[in-house]
Amino acid sequence: MLKHKIKLAILGATGAVGQEVLGCLKKLNISIDELVLLASERSGGTTMKTPFGKLNVRAVNENSFDGVNFAIFSAGAERSKQWAPVAIKAGCVVIDNSSAFRYQKDVPLVIPEINGERARGAKLIANPNCTTAIAAMALWPLHKKYKLKKIFVATYQATSGAGAQAMRELLDQTKNFLNDRPVRNSKFVYPIPFNLIPHIDVFQDNGYTKEEMKVAWEMKKMFGDDGMQISCTAVRIPTLRAHSEAIVIETEKSVNSDEARELLRTAPGIEVRDNPSQNLYPMPLTASGKYDVEVGRIRQSLIFGDRGLEFFVSGDQLLRGAALNAVKILQLLISQ
Amino acid sequence: MLKHKIKLAILGATGAVGQEVLGCLKKLNISIDELVLLASERSGGTTMKTPFGKLNVRAVNENSFDGVNFAIFSAGAERSKQWAPVAIKAGCVVIDNSSAFRYQKDVPLVIPEINGERARGAKLIANPNCTTAIAAMALWPLHKKYKLKKIFVATYQATSGAGAQAMRELLDQTKNFLNDRPVRNSKFVYPIPFNLIPHIDVFQDNGYTKEEMKVAWEMKKMFGDDGMQISCTAVRIPTLRAHSEAIVIETEKSVNSDEARELLRTAPGIEVRDNPSQNLYPMPLTASGKYDVEVGRIRQSLIFGDRGLEFFVSGDQLLRGAALNAVKILQLLISQ
Repeated sequence: MLKHKIKLAILGATGAVGQEVLGCLKKLNISIDELVLLASERSGGTTMKTPFGKLNVRAVNENSFDGVNFAIFSAGAERSKQWAPVAIKAGCVVIDNSSAFRYQKDVPLVIPEINGERARGAKLIANPNCTTAIAAMALWPLHKKYKLKKIFVATYQATSGAGAQAMRELLDQTKNFLNDRPVRNSKFVYPIPFNLIPHIDVFQDNGYTKEEMKVAWEMKKMFGDDGMQISCTAVRIPTLRAHSEAIVIETEKSVNSDEARELLRTAPGIEVRDNPSQNLYPMPLTASGKYDVEVGRIRQSLIFGDRGLEFFVSGDQLLRGAALNAVKILQLLISQ
Repeated sequence: MLKHKIKLAILGATGAVGQEVLGCLKKLNISIDELVLLASERSGGTTMKTPFGKLNVRAVNENSFDGVNFAIFSAGAERSKQWAPVAIKAGCVVIDNSSAFRYQKDVPLVIPEINGERARGAKLIANPNCTTAIAAMALWPLHKKYKLKKIFVATYQATSGAGAQAMRELLDQTKNFLNDRPVRNSKFVYPIPFNLIPHIDVFQDNGYTKEEMKVAWEMKKMFGDDGMQISCTAVRIPTLRAHSEAIVIETEKSVNSDEARELLRTAPGIEVRDNPSQNLYPMPLTASGKYDVEVGRIRQSLIFGDRGLEFFVSGDQLLRGAALNAVKILQLLISQ
């Protein structure tokens, strides 16, 4: 146990993920001695309601991290790049939700239930992309037991993955659609009500979006296995919260769907929701707001037979994909 | 050319697909001498507006098909089973949109652009499932040239695939959701607004739904290739019209994504909509109401390399998946 008091800073405290971080700190009963809420110049000087009472929000500056032990950054890659060096120099351990440092070799990419040991001693720890994190919860136990060779992912991603304003756009523009008013888009490239958009983050030269490549890059890094072959199609759909993913895997070892289901039942961070006869399967409706990732539709692959499975996951991307994961890393560091 | 007059019956004329059939007959300028609109007892005796003027709708009975040359059935599998034998006995050629006869060995399963020759001389011709038909438009040219070994499909299916009332349910319940009123479901197993449901049609013993198995069964039958391995995850999403599908293929022959794109540009029934730099890709927003299936996001597979592609399709399931396909079969038969 650390002997000194724990002073935690949250950069991006007023954002969608920042608010969830505060909720997770409360719910997981993390013992913090002092909480510093940081935001951009714009939100600095305001107060916000938190599970710990009404707290002041300060504009981040060069001295914000003095005496701070830990910081959770949820203010986007640009701000992370700007402020992480400042925080680290001040002696603060940074847990970063952005993609800014994920692919740096010396920065561990951590999900506590998968590779928590890599967080120990690090000054900067990266949180994986939400889509990767949600899939990884189900894939890791399967990888450990059956060794994954190929992973095929097709995603069904919620609008809140693009931020609170994007979720607002879905709601507002859906109202416009239903009232025969013009449907506009600003956060999304096209109108999202009653539509889908197979385009998340920027396109790469190979025709994949960065969101799709993140799943491949990050899964390999987290699992410590460069030999796995992974591909993804990432699609935004008109849901509010919780990303879903249809996944097919090819395994090196023989796998049985009943056995895999039982294995996943005992795995941490997962809720097996898989009973077709009772219409139980993962859905945003039930996965939203839940800490565990729902896994279901587990079945023997029609393509890979006894060397493959197909399944479906739904997980709250603001929680498992961001806030919860960061707070669980913090919990791990504090309990060292 | 047939010498006798063409008398066409439409069973299920008042339904969502029936109405689209009438639109396609008009748009494709099919020369019909007499049109007989048939429906259940409930809708019999009414009149309906059609592109051919206001027409009477009659309740189907044992004598409905006397003197009728061709019939398009879009009234569900039960009614098809009941009335197809009656129509055939009366000397009528039946084009059936339901799943009633699709898997009978002696019944051809036809998409004119793929295997139109099989429709010739048949008394009963089955239309494929909408999800199968939309994928098949892009898969067939690729299969002919590169020979498909494995096909992985994840679907994003519109509510109108479950009928006009299901689409109504999405609209009405979305209004309720936005007005903080209780959200109900009757056509769907769960509320569909801002949700998705990975469950279409009934579950089979192998854990796949019948909708998912249809894609495998029907693609193999249509392509005349039992060796292909196909799997599918079928998901209902809160869109109104046009199904989308994320598809990965492994090919026997080496394939290049640029070459494949050019091949698809010249294939019938397809619109290649694939230019990431201009944000052009298939979407329900643009595919709805369109006769051609949109194909895009064509890229080399990260998993199968030069032996595989990944792409995305969106197609109007009421048209390509049902009405248009039936009318195109009729067109083929008439022009024999």
